[in-house]
Amino acid sequence: MQAAALHDPHPTRTTPRTDPTVEDPVTASDLIVDPRHRTDWATGAVLGDGVETLERRVADLAGVFADGAALAALDPELLVYRTECVFPVPDGTEGGLFWGTTFIQPGRVGEEYFMTKGHFHATSDRAEIYLTYAGTGLLVLMSRDRTCWAERMSVGSTHFIPAHTAHRTVNVGDDILAFGASWPSDAGHDYASIAADGFSARVLRIGGRPALVPQ
Amino acid sequence: MQAAALHDPHPTRTTPRTDPTVEDPVTASDLIVDPRHRTDWATGAVLGDGVETLERRVADLAGVFADGAALAALDPELLVYRTECVFPVPDGTEGGLFWGTTFIQPGRVGEEYFMTKGHFHATSDRAEIYLTYAGTGLLVLMSRDRTCWAERMSVGSTHFIPAHTAHRTVNVGDDILAFGASWPSDAGHDYASIAADGFSARVLRIGGRPALVPQ
Repeated sequence: MQAAALHDPHPTRTTPRTDPTVEDPVTASDLIVDPRHRTDWATGAVLGDGVETLERRVADLAGVFADGAALAALDPELLVYRTECVFPVPDGTEGGLFWGTTFIQPGRVGEEYFMTKGHFHATSDRAEIYLTYAGTGLLVLMSRDRTCWAERMSVGSTHFIPAHTAHRTVNVGDDILAFGASWPSDAGHDYASIAADGFSARVLRIGGRPALVPQ
Repeated sequence: MQAAALHDPHPTRTTPRTDPTVEDPVTASDLIVDPRHRTDWATGAVLGDGVETLERRVADLAGVFADGAALAALDPELLVYRTECVFPVPDGTEGGLFWGTTFIQPGRVGEEYFMTKGHFHATSDRAEIYLTYAGTGLLVLMSRDRTCWAERMSVGSTHFIPAHTAHRTVNVGDDILAFGASWPSDAGHDYASIAADGFSARVLRIGGRPALVPQ
C-alpha cells in the first residue's frame, strides 16, 4: 500500500491538459479515473489499494470472555474476527471518515458467543454507522451510565450508534457475521474502559437461544 | 415519523427490569430490540421509521444544466433524482453521522446526462463516503481551485470524497443509478457556490459516450 498517496487530499486528481475541447473526447476522458476501492455487498469484502487488515485470535482476547477456562481450552491461533478497513486520511483528522468491514466467525467461548472487544470512542461524542451484509448478530450498546441494550443484526440492518455509547458486536448465528462501518476519523478507540470495567451485560446461550444477560 | 424519538441519543434503549437473572431469558430478551432501519443492498432502498424523502424534478433544476432550451422542453414534473435519508440527530450536530441513498433516473438534458445539483459542504473540511448499489455513473469532484475530475461509479464502487471538494453525481447508464452516502451531521450543504459558479466541467455525451468536458 502507498500510505502517502492515500493521504493525498486529491488522491485521484489528474492535471487537465491545456486547451481541452469538445472535439477531443480522449482529452476529456483523461479526467475520468477508476475508483480505488470497492465493497462487495454480498460478503462485505473491501477491495483495493491500501486496505488494512487486522485479525483477532483467541490468544488476543484474554479477559474479554467470561469463561477464562473455556477460552484457554481453545486453539490460541483460532480466528475470532478480522477487519478490512480503508483509512483515506490520517487517524485523528477532523472531518474525515473511515470505512471498513468486520467479519466475526461463528463460535462460542463456553456459552458466550464470539464477539468483538468493544469500545467507546476516545472522542466520546463521535457516532458510527453499522451495516449488516451477512449473518445474524447482536449489536450490544452501553451508555456511560452502564445501561446496556442490543439491536438485532441481519442482512440489511442499519444501525446508528449514538454519541457516548460503547459498542460491541456478537455473532449469534452459524455463519460469518459481516458488517460495514463508517466512523469519523477523529473518533479514536477507547478500549481501556471496556478492558477495565467490561460491558454491563453479556450475550450467552440460554436454552439454545442468545440472551443479553446483565452481569 | 417521530422526529423527537429519532433525536433521542438512546433511541432504542429500554430500561432493564430489576433483578434479571440467568434463569429468566424472557427478561434478558426484553433488552434486545429490532433495528429501526434497513438498507436493501440490491436497490439501495432505505426502510424504517423516519426515512425522509426528497425529490428533484425538472422544474427544480433551472440553471443546473447547460442547455436551458432542452430543459424547458421536458415535462416540468419529470423526476430527475430523489433521496431517502435517515437523520438520527439534528442537523448541525458535531460528531454525528447521516445516512441515505440517492436514486438518479436515466436521461439527458440535450447532451448532458441527468445529475444532482452538487455542492461543497458548508463546513468545508467535512468528508463523505459514497457507495454504489446499482447502475453506472460518474462522481464529479472539484477542488477549491476549480480543478475537476471524476471517478467511475458501478456496483460496489466505494468513494472517499475529500475535504474541501465539491461533489456531483451523474447517471451515464440506461438504468437508475443508486448510491449510498454517509456524511457528518455538521457538514451542511453549500449549494450557493455551485449555483453561482457551477463546476468547471460537465459530463456530456460525445460520440455516444460520456466525457467530462471542461467548460
